[in-house]
Amino acid sequence: MLKDIRKIFIVTKAGEPRAAALASEVATWLASRGIDSLTVPHHCGMGNFPCSMTTCDLVLVLGGDGTMIGVAREVGGQSPMLGVNLGRVGFLTEVPADDWQQCLSDLLDGRMVVRRRLTLAYAVLRDGVRVHEGRVVNDIVVNRGSLARLIRLRVAIAGEWLGSIRADGMVVSTPTGSTAYSISSGGPIVHPDIAAVAVTPICPFMNDFRPMVLPGDCHLEIEVEEPASEVFLTLDGQECVPLALGDVIAIDAVDGGLLLVEPEESTYLSRLRTKGVIE
Amino acid sequence: MLKDIRKIFIVTKAGEPRAAALASEVATWLASRGIDSLTVPHHCGMGNFPCSMTTCDLVLVLGGDGTMIGVAREVGGQSPMLGVNLGRVGFLTEVPADDWQQCLSDLLDGRMVVRRRLTLAYAVLRDGVRVHEGRVVNDIVVNRGSLARLIRLRVAIAGEWLGSIRADGMVVSTPTGSTAYSISSGGPIVHPDIAAVAVTPICPFMNDFRPMVLPGDCHLEIEVEEPASEVFLTLDGQECVPLALGDVIAIDAVDGGLLLVEPEESTYLSRLRTKGVIE
Amino acid sequence: MLKDIRKIFIVTKAGEPRAAALASEVATWLASRGIDSLTVPHHCGMGNFPCSMTTCDLVLVLGGDGTMIGVAREVGGQSPMLGVNLGRVGFLTEVPADDWQQCLSDLLDGRMVVRRRLTLAYAVLRDGVRVHEGRVVNDIVVNRGSLARLIRLRVAIAGEWLGSIRADGMVVSTPTGSTAYSISSGGPIVHPDIAAVAVTPICPFMNDFRPMVLPGDCHLEIEVEEPASEVFLTLDGQECVPLALGDVIAIDAVDGGLLLVEPEESTYLSRLRTKGVIE
Amino acid sequence: MLKDIRKIFIVTKAGEPRAAALASEVATWLASRGIDSLTVPHHCGMGNFPCSMTTCDLVLVLGGDGTMIGVAREVGGQSPMLGVNLGRVGFLTEVPADDWQQCLSDLLDGRMVVRRRLTLAYAVLRDGVRVHEGRVVNDIVVNRGSLARLIRLRVAIAGEWLGSIRADGMVVSTPTGSTAYSISSGGPIVHPDIAAVAVTPICPFMNDFRPMVLPGDCHLEIEVEEPASEVFLTLDGQECVPLALGDVIAIDAVDGGLLLVEPEESTYLSRLRTKGVIE
Repeated sequence: MLKDIRKIFIVTKAGEPRAAALASEVATWLASRGIDSLTVPHHCGMGNFPCSMTTCDLVLVLGGDGTMIGVAREVGGQSPMLGVNLGRVGFLTEVPADDWQQCLSDLLDGRMVVRRRLTLAYAVLRDGVRVHEGRVVNDIVVNRGSLARLIRLRVAIAGEWLGSIRADGMVVSTPTGSTAYSISSGGPIVHPDIAAVAVTPICPFMNDFRPMVLPGDCHLEIEVEEPASEVFLTLDGQECVPLALGDVIAIDAVDGGLLLVEPEESTYLSRLRTKGVIE
Repeated sequence: MLKDIRKIFIVTKAGEPRAAALASEVATWLASRGIDSLTVPHHCGMGNFPCSMTTCDLVLVLGGDGTMIGVAREVGGQSPMLGVNLGRVGFLTEVPADDWQQCLSDLLDGRMVVRRRLTLAYAVLRDGVRVHEGRVVNDIVVNRGSLARLIRLRVAIAGEWLGSIRADGMVVSTPTGSTAYSISSGGPIVHPDIAAVAVTPICPFMNDFRPMVLPGDCHLEIEVEEPASEVFLTLDGQECVPLALGDVIAIDAVDGGLLLVEPEESTYLSRLRTKGVIE
Repeated sequence: MLKDIRKIFIVTKAGEPRAAALASEVATWLASRGIDSLTVPHHCGMGNFPCSMTTCDLVLVLGGDGTMIGVAREVGGQSPMLGVNLGRVGFLTEVPADDWQQCLSDLLDGRMVVRRRLTLAYAVLRDGVRVHEGRVVNDIVVNRGSLARLIRLRVAIAGEWLGSIRADGMVVSTPTGSTAYSISSGGPIVHPDIAAVAVTPICPFMNDFRPMVLPGDCHLEIEVEEPASEVFLTLDGQECVPLALGDVIAIDAVDGGLLLVEPEESTYLSRLRTKGVIE
Repeated sequence: MLKDIRKIFIVTKAGEPRAAALASEVATWLASRGIDSLTVPHHCGMGNFPCSMTTCDLVLVLGGDGTMIGVAREVGGQSPMLGVNLGRVGFLTEVPADDWQQCLSDLLDGRMVVRRRLTLAYAVLRDGVRVHEGRVVNDIVVNRGSLARLIRLRVAIAGEWLGSIRADGMVVSTPTGSTAYSISSGGPIVHPDIAAVAVTPICPFMNDFRPMVLPGDCHLEIEVEEPASEVFLTLDGQECVPLALGDVIAIDAVDGGLLLVEPEESTYLSRLRTKGVIE
């Protein structure tokens, strides 16, 4: 349930004049209803948010799914988020730009609900040292470089080695991300009400590993076994980290790592249809 | 947790002398430890079990996965079940025949655990009338006959129509069944600790429908839209029911519809490896 | 190149009044141009054609792809065939009904070409005896019955055993048939200018066999290794033959087994687009 | 048929002492039989071969499949090639190192045959200028960089646009290369006796493009439609060329671009089995 809304953080896609203009309009509208707001442009991966962002009652994102995901990685489930889409209707930013006023009215009148989504926290361990860490909303991809051959990855689930796989790489996806890169790799659509993680190989050699859906509460580890110099970790398709031989990527699901505000009547299936994923 | 074991129902694969001989040996061993037992051969789909079976403390199955599934469909989560395998090691009947004594000792000493598995309850509705119903452990398959062309099926999830699909058929699988027929149709491996149902099309025309993993608590309906006379419902690969145009198959998950007794140290992943599903 | 057209066989889809009416119109039109014609309705699998059909200069089919395939299986490359479609535009019956007059004018003016298509000849060998034989335009499918489990098939190519496969079945397809059932089973689109045969497993267990494209001139054999009673041979989706344990299906490509008359400018790719197979 | 062998070019994998030692042994053996030989180490992509290499009667490669492919790209069908494998048995370098003497005796005694393989010639056209060109034995891969999103590629076959595809990339493979990267992307195994080219998308978005097998004699063009800066052309997995927006990759098959010397009794199927691709 959404608590009483008194303070809203408005985040705009940086360098997008339309977002800035809309933000100003929205702020005026909110002020006239006695609601405080603060507007900040979002630079992907900059970590530039004031800490107060996580103490507001709502983060309102004006942009596309990319901006929404970038902001969500920093908010991390501490505040509910609502996305107003400035482009085509997105999976996460479901409200079309023209409907913002109706949408905010519905919000203030209690006709919106908060839905919990699972996100992933990850850390890269190199020789036992944590050299990188963060959170993703959609997916963690371990992938070979452009020239490198197949890479070999060792996968462990809940501390138990599952086996090695030779492939172009591997996608670890949240239910939210299951319709993004994971589906192109052959992974299943996983309904976001399931606390689960999908693990899907990318172009596996001889098909020796099938897409798996694992419980959200199990710790996952992927180790780079292949000496190839070119292996990359890609986070939500927004950030890219080079990996070294022997690196271990440790992954844990964060239940409620994203709190998504949605119209009561909106369903996951209707969004799948709208986006052409089904039918 | 397994409660105190005082009464065991032993079910043997019918027409399998080895199972009958083992049952007699097991009964003697149990009697010497003050435990009552009753032995009944299992005829698939006969519903021949005395009702007392569901009141015993354990159902011990001597046979293979097929027998285990047939018995489980009748026991339906009312008693914990343990399978001793007389053939090659099975997914559900994990204990090799030669280890039965060790296994039962472990059981009596409290070194076995009960794991809940999701099963499916289904009903066939024809012109609003319930013409068939039952339970499955692995999967419900709607499939065309040998000559019939593609069939068209309408799928609804939680009362919302998802769309129509043209295919050879569709598999609705429990996590337990995800490594059976579902995986051959391109479905993912779903860990049995997840309360979810996998829906996978069989040879879909133009690939217009992807494997989906849905929450275990959502009601699923499949309607036969195609006038072809030859459409069949196959239940756990053991029972086959002809369907008619307009028939609706209503499916609900039953959490804990199977209570599986397993060695404490046994894991799902180790079974996947043993059976060659991974690696 | 089409030779001089003096005699045309018109085949109509049986029980289709529209086809009969059109045939009469076409015959009158042809007669006014000094061309003989004879009209016969087609009953699938009846082998009811007068032998003279194979001595005419053209077989003109009024119906859909199904009728075209049924007739083509009997004509077997002895006469060029042209299909006028009475339903939606087909892969083989490309000329829409309303365009028949333009199409026949083009034909008589030499603006149509004959394209050779590969077909398949098959025989079922039981205990060394040929118990069934025939030809197909699209595909030969060996498939399990509705209840039967996975079947095991042995495949030999050019006299060399390729191995056994456990699956629901197997599709052997011509390039023409590669966009029919074969594609739903995961087979590739094979351009009809290639003299090749596609062999694709249906729902293979553990994915142990990949779709293969083999030279058109290699003899193929499939043996039913599995004792299951329910195995069927389905021919072009039109005819169904029960198989027994040990049966061997011997398959040979027939180059030019179908001679298809097409507008000069018509291409395979444009048909793929029209039918929605690509894009 | 192999012509009379008088002059052999021996190519060794550079920096591989075992190859150099074996080359010296082989040269001595050949000299004692009155056959001239010249030994040159191979540096991948260096184009360091004396032009006389293409005028010899045989190119004998001591190395693995990688060396064989690198050399074959330069020889280009002008001389028959034979590979002696120093590692595990390869697809192209079939003769184990220990068998070299038997193999060369068989060769001189006329018990080896030459088999023609199709290769691919490609050129990168940028603003109408040919900025890069060459030949491949296995495959031409157009692929996105590590961070870049899906790329959009336009494909034309024989001058006719086939459509656009959004994917990670695309593999254009010879029959020889069909068991290499192409198969991991979901492409079919294409028997090398077929003059055909396989076109397979890599992780296509929404599966909107299926693997296709096209006639070897049709000209193929792929255009980079996506403004993403990171798109690469990878050639036989050995060479990597950055592509720019609007670049067109023109591809033509070269029949007999590789002349492979093989034992008479060796078959393609037996090699598939040996390498574990089938069974």
